[in-house]
Amino acid sequence: MDERNLAHAGRSVVAITDPDDPRIVAYRDIRERDLTGRHGFIAEGTVVLDQLALSERFRPSSVLVLRNRLSSIADRLSHLPADCPIYVSERAVIDQIAGFPMHRGVLAHGIDTQPERSVTEVLDNAMAGYGPVLIAIGIANHDNIGALFRNARAFGVGGVLLDDTSCNPLYRKALRVSVGTVLTADWCRSGNADDLIAAAEAAGYRPIALTPKGEHSLDDLEPTERLALVVGAEGPGLPENILDRLHGLRIAMESDVDSLNVATTAAIVLSRLYDSRGKCGR
Amino acid sequence: MDERNLAHAGRSVVAITDPDDPRIVAYRDIRERDLTGRHGFIAEGTVVLDQLALSERFRPSSVLVLRNRLSSIADRLSHLPADCPIYVSERAVIDQIAGFPMHRGVLAHGIDTQPERSVTEVLDNAMAGYGPVLIAIGIANHDNIGALFRNARAFGVGGVLLDDTSCNPLYRKALRVSVGTVLTADWCRSGNADDLIAAAEAAGYRPIALTPKGEHSLDDLEPTERLALVVGAEGPGLPENILDRLHGLRIAMESDVDSLNVATTAAIVLSRLYDSRGKCGR
Repeated sequence: MDERNLAHAGRSVVAITDPDDPRIVAYRDIRERDLTGRHGFIAEGTVVLDQLALSERFRPSSVLVLRNRLSSIADRLSHLPADCPIYVSERAVIDQIAGFPMHRGVLAHGIDTQPERSVTEVLDNAMAGYGPVLIAIGIANHDNIGALFRNARAFGVGGVLLDDTSCNPLYRKALRVSVGTVLTADWCRSGNADDLIAAAEAAGYRPIALTPKGEHSLDDLEPTERLALVVGAEGPGLPENILDRLHGLRIAMESDVDSLNVATTAAIVLSRLYDSRGKCGR
Repeated sequence: MDERNLAHAGRSVVAITDPDDPRIVAYRDIRERDLTGRHGFIAEGTVVLDQLALSERFRPSSVLVLRNRLSSIADRLSHLPADCPIYVSERAVIDQIAGFPMHRGVLAHGIDTQPERSVTEVLDNAMAGYGPVLIAIGIANHDNIGALFRNARAFGVGGVLLDDTSCNPLYRKALRVSVGTVLTADWCRSGNADDLIAAAEAAGYRPIALTPKGEHSLDDLEPTERLALVVGAEGPGLPENILDRLHGLRIAMESDVDSLNVATTAAIVLSRLYDSRGKCGR
């Protein structure tokens, strides 16, 4: 499918030749500023765009495509909402717009179509399924937030609760590292660690802290339990008062290596739970 | 311990006040250029510095420390080789040297004290232990290379074989993401996928390709076997000719999520092997 076929699918393509064109202002200098909240967010690349197209909560308000990538992604573009403009530029123009060499060939500007989720809503929704929930505390690193979502979605997590000191997962880099799963996961970002853990317990989840200091090993996991896995930032880890009162789970590893990455830790535990659930028929 | 105690430990500290001082030329504009090979490499932060101090193969040729970090890391510095100069600068000078705001407070310039390892040497050394080996093909992303080393060392991998299209793990960012484990792992980077797989087989390892298309699951792993886990770049994955002839291992996951990160995939499999080895007494 190419541009003509897009036209046959009822989609028009708008050429942008001026980097200052007001229609593409959302894409200006995206390296320097990170859109989130009421200004929407930027999705990069076809993998993230696919999750945006699947999302019930988020939707694209426009896309900006490199001219020479148009034919290869025309099929994807034809499935975008009819009122989502498709802007097309040559490389020199698109690089000026974005403020850096834009390798991925497609950017989308996305918006949240729903009110922010509450913790209770996320937990209620998760309880309707079988997966655990993930509670992330103080994750300020965009790569780690993105990787946590990717792994959470890969292993069927029912919901992700971020405390208000964690970064917004809609930041461009977090979204990219998440391979767009932030857009199809159920999550919220509010409150502190105590609030989130208390809410998970009230909903029927058993909170477990993932920590190198944990007294339990992966073999102690009960796959039939509803678990809320609690992870903290690399470096500081979870606050002492949280570690003191939660069951702690450690991953066996060599003693002379600094701890595992937080998203990797979550992936190892989530994969084990996912396999166990399969075996007990859930 | 502070600067005076460092002096008592027989260590002198050299103040650098001119960013053009020829003694710190190795640290100039490190963001823009990536040292490796005969020019040595740059290690950032105390975690990487600790692995450098532990390394048998690599050693620091000098360190450059932020003045206000000196007292907090003086103890570490006192254990560096006696002929390793300790340069100290104020923030304004160090930022000019490095070419960007230097948050970590300590940089080391490191060198390789040994000839490059051969594939046979790495495999012979690995066979003396119990862990699997890791073969990485076409990993050009510095984060992924670093994360692969971190996970390999955490779960007792005996050696890492990189093909010659993978990036050098001594690149600054790869080294940082590896939390310095590149400096204490046994590894080499040479040859192509076929060479590396053939060498591992000749040494007695059974090669297994980690791939979403794999016909085997984690439960099929035989912890008593000597395994060579083969991973490829994200996106393209392993070449078809490799996938065709190796046993393939997949990780069970949700079908609507783009595959896992390559280092995360390795971590999940390596953790499972590590736990199984523990159980069978190895």
